[in-house]
Amino acid sequence: MKHLLSIDDLTRADLGELLDLSDSFVEVTQREIPKIPALRGKTVVTLFFEDSTRTRLSFETAAKRLSADTMSFSASTSSVRKGESLLDTVQTIQAMGVDAIVVRHPCAGAAHRVAGWVDASVVNAGDGRHQHPTQAVLDLLTLRRHRGTGGFDGLRVLFVGDIGHSRVARSGVQALATMGAEVSLAGPPTLLPESLDGWPATVVEDLDTALPEVDVVYLLRIQRERLGAALLPSLREYTSRYGITTERAARLKPDTLIMHPGPMNRGVEIAAEVADGPASLVTEQVANGVAARMAVLWSLLGSGGRIA
Amino acid sequence: MKHLLSIDDLTRADLGELLDLSDSFVEVTQREIPKIPALRGKTVVTLFFEDSTRTRLSFETAAKRLSADTMSFSASTSSVRKGESLLDTVQTIQAMGVDAIVVRHPCAGAAHRVAGWVDASVVNAGDGRHQHPTQAVLDLLTLRRHRGTGGFDGLRVLFVGDIGHSRVARSGVQALATMGAEVSLAGPPTLLPESLDGWPATVVEDLDTALPEVDVVYLLRIQRERLGAALLPSLREYTSRYGITTERAARLKPDTLIMHPGPMNRGVEIAAEVADGPASLVTEQVANGVAARMAVLWSLLGSGGRIA
Amino acid sequence: MKHLLSIDDLTRADLGELLDLSDSFVEVTQREIPKIPALRGKTVVTLFFEDSTRTRLSFETAAKRLSADTMSFSASTSSVRKGESLLDTVQTIQAMGVDAIVVRHPCAGAAHRVAGWVDASVVNAGDGRHQHPTQAVLDLLTLRRHRGTGGFDGLRVLFVGDIGHSRVARSGVQALATMGAEVSLAGPPTLLPESLDGWPATVVEDLDTALPEVDVVYLLRIQRERLGAALLPSLREYTSRYGITTERAARLKPDTLIMHPGPMNRGVEIAAEVADGPASLVTEQVANGVAARMAVLWSLLGSGGRIA
Repeated sequence: MKHLLSIDDLTRADLGELLDLSDSFVEVTQREIPKIPALRGKTVVTLFFEDSTRTRLSFETAAKRLSADTMSFSASTSSVRKGESLLDTVQTIQAMGVDAIVVRHPCAGAAHRVAGWVDASVVNAGDGRHQHPTQAVLDLLTLRRHRGTGGFDGLRVLFVGDIGHSRVARSGVQALATMGAEVSLAGPPTLLPESLDGWPATVVEDLDTALPEVDVVYLLRIQRERLGAALLPSLREYTSRYGITTERAARLKPDTLIMHPGPMNRGVEIAAEVADGPASLVTEQVANGVAARMAVLWSLLGSGGRIA
Repeated sequence: MKHLLSIDDLTRADLGELLDLSDSFVEVTQREIPKIPALRGKTVVTLFFEDSTRTRLSFETAAKRLSADTMSFSASTSSVRKGESLLDTVQTIQAMGVDAIVVRHPCAGAAHRVAGWVDASVVNAGDGRHQHPTQAVLDLLTLRRHRGTGGFDGLRVLFVGDIGHSRVARSGVQALATMGAEVSLAGPPTLLPESLDGWPATVVEDLDTALPEVDVVYLLRIQRERLGAALLPSLREYTSRYGITTERAARLKPDTLIMHPGPMNRGVEIAAEVADGPASLVTEQVANGVAARMAVLWSLLGSGGRIA
Repeated sequence: MKHLLSIDDLTRADLGELLDLSDSFVEVTQREIPKIPALRGKTVVTLFFEDSTRTRLSFETAAKRLSADTMSFSASTSSVRKGESLLDTVQTIQAMGVDAIVVRHPCAGAAHRVAGWVDASVVNAGDGRHQHPTQAVLDLLTLRRHRGTGGFDGLRVLFVGDIGHSRVARSGVQALATMGAEVSLAGPPTLLPESLDGWPATVVEDLDTALPEVDVVYLLRIQRERLGAALLPSLREYTSRYGITTERAARLKPDTLIMHPGPMNRGVEIAAEVADGPASLVTEQVANGVAARMAVLWSLLGSGGRIA
């Protein structure tokens, strides 16, 4: 594996290996000194053209736990302001001798373009509404650690919310379908994908009928900017129709799991009680994100030796 | 000690131990290679919701000299912009597996709230006008290195300036009083505390009468935003009444020491000649800040072994 | 060598030694683990009052490859916003115990002033339109690796563009002249230096006549803010008169080299085909920048031992 650009690039076997590797790194992160020298002397750059806390810090933590050096390049403090092109920015970073570039960019396809320009490995950390493959890996990891290795076959997962604009949903649906899960989608018609091409999933008509049937509810963040674009009437209306309130949560099976990529709008797409309740995997998703990203970086940059 | 949230949490004996430990770290910082492996594998995050140069860099330097990994999270480049709550931000950081969170926030009590949410150790690096305990520790350290271990008893310290809004003053006054010093306050009535509850100090009526009697003058930064709030008539007026000009400095005893937490407004609360003069401890305060923060981080995260 | 503030400070012999050392570090950066422990325990701070990607990351990469710790201080996230003076900022950084300060500032002479205030070594990473000495060192290194050790004598180098405002040009012209090159300048009269004092170079009247005679064309970035200042009629006009278009590039000797400090305005001062063509050294300049800065930092901070 040279780059990780899209979840499409990975077969079910590839994903299985990545999850096995991630499990090993979960074990590493729980050690007294959660650090191994696997990538000593390697340099990982985060190149972010969109604000992000959790994704950038998660990759940096993963790189540091593998003893790589990290550098951070964000659009607001760089010569991007001077009008430097993406190509020149990337060539500059490459020329400094980096081994991996973790790129987030508002345009779909940006990470693919970067990968075409450089010798370094490229990890897509989100490109427009297109892909966010490491999120899908960490979500699979989180589910597999709860449901077991054979737990994906027939697992019913329902995504709820702003699916059409979501790279998290697109990557996640594809990854879950590849692993054998049955995926369905719910949300306001304005926020569903225009076509189900590339979405191996069905659409449910009525959320409240669907909820008691599913094993996992995956909530997406409501972007307040959708309101301005007339795609949403109001947050209150959204919550009343699609929010996982305590009432709706009560209709779920007792073992149904709740996931969210963060950051959450408590009181909008998820009630605070549900976010903090026992069914919520939100915090585990963050924790597993470090291990999943260690696995991805190690797969791309490791010399294939044993994990010390 | 699990957290350091307020100077109130520390007895005179606790402070003494922390100062002894800080002295050892002053010695470490003067070595050819000023670095020890004490916190190797630990991760310290600075979580700053207010701009700060010296405090953030001081903590990061302290952490690096103990061989901890550091990560920096600042409000302006994070998903706080997206409206993420403090709770979710902190839970996310915690889930990534950090060992200590150094938090600065404009609201009093923020660090206490953070400490209630996480397993990691929390250091309050300033919460509104409430507390800034590591500043008090470094100030004590700086004074003790000049006056000796027994030097606090009866030491007369006069704080001058915007005391009512100052977490530096509140923490410093409490720490000095705990150590046995006699603390007094001077400043425009609009900038003094509304009540002396929680301020083990007296107010002096006339600054110029008080100056020749004190051993230490501790100046506070004048915030220009107080002018807009009608709490100050003008900077010129402030300087003429409360600034430590060369004339006022000439009235001090020859061995009176002058302190300021920085950044200074030269020509406002302190004349440039005084700031750079032999009585000024300003630079020593900064230097001792690194050692004091090494002592705090080591007390919170160290396994109790010897300082190598 | 205590500081590197200006290319004037270096004799031809000094530059030769720095280039020999840089060559050794090029070899280090090509190793499987491109890192040596030469500056372990040293701290290098980048103190940037102007945005820059490539220069800041280049210095940080250089420092990390020498195993130094790095800290980054940028004007927009610091107490400079609170009005702290340059003096106080620098004294604060110094007091924390740093070994080298890499400073970029919009005012000519800023790095000299910083050097007068501190015990740490200071590297000028650009001060107004005055000097940018490490850029000159990396440019010499890039040329010497192409032309050989004796290649500077009589080498004809033509700088084109906004020369009068350019610290890159000023440092580069001086360094090349010191090494024995023959330097000439071309550009709109409004963008040439007002006097050739301090510019060991001649001005060419007609660019198109000069191009076939030179061994190296060094292009400078056109700053769009010059348009507002009425120093340039339009970018299109500039390109037609001074841009290295494919037509102009065709008039060069086959072995003429093309350099640019970046970031490039493709289609303005340089055609994209030329920037990416075989004569362009732009990417090599960036790569050599890391080695050149390792050489500078090692010369300032190394204990004089062997490069391991």
